[in-house]
Amino acid sequence: MAKFLTNREESYTQWYNDLVIKAGLAENSAVRGCMVIKPYGYAIWEKMQGELDKLLKATGHVNAYFPLFIPKSFFSREAAHVEGFAKECAIVTHYRLKNSPDGKGIIVDPEAKLEEELIIRPTSETIIWNTYRDWIQSYRDLPLLINQWANVVRWEMRTRLFLRTAEFLWQEGHTAHATSGEAVNEARLILDLYASFVENYLAIPVFRGRKTESERFAGAVDTYAIEALMQDGKALQAGTSHFLGQNFAKAFDVRFTDQNGKLDHVWATSWGTSTRLIGALIMTHSDNNGLVLPPKLAPVQVVIVPIYKGGEGAERIRPYAERIKESLANLGISVKFDDRDTQKPGWKFAEYELKGVPVRIAVGQRDLENNTVEIARRDTLEKTTINADAVVEYVPSLLDEIQQAIFKKALKFREENTFTTDNWDEFVDIMENRGGFALAHFDGSRETEEKIKDLTKATVRCIPFDSHDEKGKCILTGNPSERRVLFARAY
Amino acid sequence: MAKFLTNREESYTQWYNDLVIKAGLAENSAVRGCMVIKPYGYAIWEKMQGELDKLLKATGHVNAYFPLFIPKSFFSREAAHVEGFAKECAIVTHYRLKNSPDGKGIIVDPEAKLEEELIIRPTSETIIWNTYRDWIQSYRDLPLLINQWANVVRWEMRTRLFLRTAEFLWQEGHTAHATSGEAVNEARLILDLYASFVENYLAIPVFRGRKTESERFAGAVDTYAIEALMQDGKALQAGTSHFLGQNFAKAFDVRFTDQNGKLDHVWATSWGTSTRLIGALIMTHSDNNGLVLPPKLAPVQVVIVPIYKGGEGAERIRPYAERIKESLANLGISVKFDDRDTQKPGWKFAEYELKGVPVRIAVGQRDLENNTVEIARRDTLEKTTINADAVVEYVPSLLDEIQQAIFKKALKFREENTFTTDNWDEFVDIMENRGGFALAHFDGSRETEEKIKDLTKATVRCIPFDSHDEKGKCILTGNPSERRVLFARAY
Repeated sequence: MAKFLTNREESYTQWYNDLVIKAGLAENSAVRGCMVIKPYGYAIWEKMQGELDKLLKATGHVNAYFPLFIPKSFFSREAAHVEGFAKECAIVTHYRLKNSPDGKGIIVDPEAKLEEELIIRPTSETIIWNTYRDWIQSYRDLPLLINQWANVVRWEMRTRLFLRTAEFLWQEGHTAHATSGEAVNEARLILDLYASFVENYLAIPVFRGRKTESERFAGAVDTYAIEALMQDGKALQAGTSHFLGQNFAKAFDVRFTDQNGKLDHVWATSWGTSTRLIGALIMTHSDNNGLVLPPKLAPVQVVIVPIYKGGEGAERIRPYAERIKESLANLGISVKFDDRDTQKPGWKFAEYELKGVPVRIAVGQRDLENNTVEIARRDTLEKTTINADAVVEYVPSLLDEIQQAIFKKALKFREENTFTTDNWDEFVDIMENRGGFALAHFDGSRETEEKIKDLTKATVRCIPFDSHDEKGKCILTGNPSERRVLFARAY
Repeated sequence: MAKFLTNREESYTQWYNDLVIKAGLAENSAVRGCMVIKPYGYAIWEKMQGELDKLLKATGHVNAYFPLFIPKSFFSREAAHVEGFAKECAIVTHYRLKNSPDGKGIIVDPEAKLEEELIIRPTSETIIWNTYRDWIQSYRDLPLLINQWANVVRWEMRTRLFLRTAEFLWQEGHTAHATSGEAVNEARLILDLYASFVENYLAIPVFRGRKTESERFAGAVDTYAIEALMQDGKALQAGTSHFLGQNFAKAFDVRFTDQNGKLDHVWATSWGTSTRLIGALIMTHSDNNGLVLPPKLAPVQVVIVPIYKGGEGAERIRPYAERIKESLANLGISVKFDDRDTQKPGWKFAEYELKGVPVRIAVGQRDLENNTVEIARRDTLEKTTINADAVVEYVPSLLDEIQQAIFKKALKFREENTFTTDNWDEFVDIMENRGGFALAHFDGSRETEEKIKDLTKATVRCIPFDSHDEKGKCILTGNPSERRVLFARAY
């Protein structure tokens, strides 16, 4: 199977596309820009959903569901918001089809035109804040901590499976608070929650920081983001959390009476992560043999492959393998025993490497005699033979080790590709040739940012939270700068 | 709280609407026909989803995700299908908004018109079967057992929260098989799975049977359904499973090579259940005090309410109540301890009755002295005082008992309201005055069915699978009939 993958070194883009298709994660649909998420890809998404949902509930958030449609007039209420999304909206204008008068198929019934057009949600702030108006009267109704798992549509012109699609799946949180401080804390809390989710489950190290004005969410006062580094040296925004101030509360007139009886507009946050994370997962860990999945999110964590000649051999190995499977399943590990006789062991080895199953156990005739198994780990492809009785000890700790090892490997890669520079030529060289993050001084102006982008295709990914004050000179203009910011070319 | 509910006897419709709103399950949104599912209603849906998803996976089904949009041309390929859905489609025609030239807000950009209009999926057979064409080549690719959790849109003219909404949430299964027999078995297996899910989790007894031609799914060869009886004597279709024959495989040219190398079209099923089930749940069990939830689906199974005077009393009761909470939580029971001092115990009692929490535990000063608690069950409102040490034994078995009791109560109601009749006047009386199901002979013709509907508003809900052959005369026409069918007015 793996031979069908383009090498990463040859074309990273083609390698990525091949991998998504060949590993059965997703494919393009007949609808421009929309993907089909295939069962194996969806199983990874379900694992992510399950874990993130637990983290959100543990911090007091509850789920709800709001309409897919947003009346056009709602959309226009928050000026920056509509400005940001107007150019990429799917718009419903009619509600009925009918037979064509010429008998040649069906057409949109011109008489079934909506009085007001409906936008398919690209994000739900407007419909949700219109709803919150009735839910919030007093400080007793606050905070309101609501999350939604949903599909959204943004009519992107250039799409790529998982990374940028016209329709995608995500969660979007929308919270309401009595004070500015509480809302800021919520936005920060969620960013930290995202960072720890992405680092601990997806095994992807991230920088946390604040966005510059030009990269801010349309309608936000402040946007925080986590930024990851892909193997090709490009950055990927893996999650965002926004402090919305009172912008949406004002646009939708959502006010509350505080403890002193004073009426004020409510303070808001919103935040989201999407199926894009699957793209980040693939591009951070995988190799020329296929996917490398973190054990905590792998739909199948261990596969057992029997090696035998003839049906008699299969019969002898089966109970031995089933016993091992059972013992691991009892520990809560997801194990598959692939005893299909339609495929050879070598084919299966390549298949599960392609699919990124973290641990492979091979059992042959000699293993039966010696009471052993051969264990291969996907990340390093290392093999070792251990006593069969030790499997229940060995495999769980190996899964932990792999989870940590791929994180460390990704962290090492990021560290080796994060450069502190004060030299423009070096900065250009990083962006054009070496790839990676550059920590550089920046004068903070929109014009400078724009110019750097024009010259190098690099953008400010974030102003890292942990960057200390350090006076310097802007990498482009030489103007004074208060601290370094994180630059990269980005997905 | 409960005093705000209209009595069922006064207006069942108003009682239902009041209950959905007051219990915080859902509300109408600003978008015509679309609802907002509020956190408490969504929590019930999540419980249903979780359980049904487990049952589907245990029978070999996997989840995937297909596009929200269906190109108009796909829609027209299966003649009966488009006929059935054309009149209630939301249609996307444009993909961009722009500022109005007169500066008065935003308008749909006429230059951003789609070449081919996109239908928001009312159901996904067409987009899925177009995809399956590439997934299926040989008998080795079959069966394909795929399910999708998604939102769908049907532009209904008259909508009611949960029961009939323009957008709703559901699961839709779409399977592909090598033979007609296998596909029929799958459709039946799913219907049985639905029936056991609805009976064992929602505690709603159902009839299983086949639909008549006029009630069949648009594009199906055969539709099977489960039918439940609501308290007002009307039936509600709680799930359907369709044998689609080769209709969609032919429309989308999905063929496979069988074991003998012969090329044939694939056989299909599809099946679904939706957020409508929440409506069924409410209308089957609830009463004038509010919701009655089956313990297996209740987001909160047990609530503990402290009864005290003054802050000192609260302090004494807290550790006692927390200990009970802990001991039940350790058994996997979902328990809430409501120690808010902003509301009186009486208010809380009414609130949790309204919300349908199956078991309420009240703890007062005297209970502390006697080491007792007072336990009230929501379904019967009966109270009993037991020793606090017995709670861990008593409550789990009480939850089981309630689960069974509400099912038995609903079954008794259905039995008392299912009439076997051979008399037209009695039939009319059942439909117009008494309500309920009528098992009556029927000549099987579309005309007779139509006429019965015109005269009584009753439809054939299904031809029950367990109805034995019994020759008779059609209740309306006197024409020969082979068996009794199930009639009712329906939601």
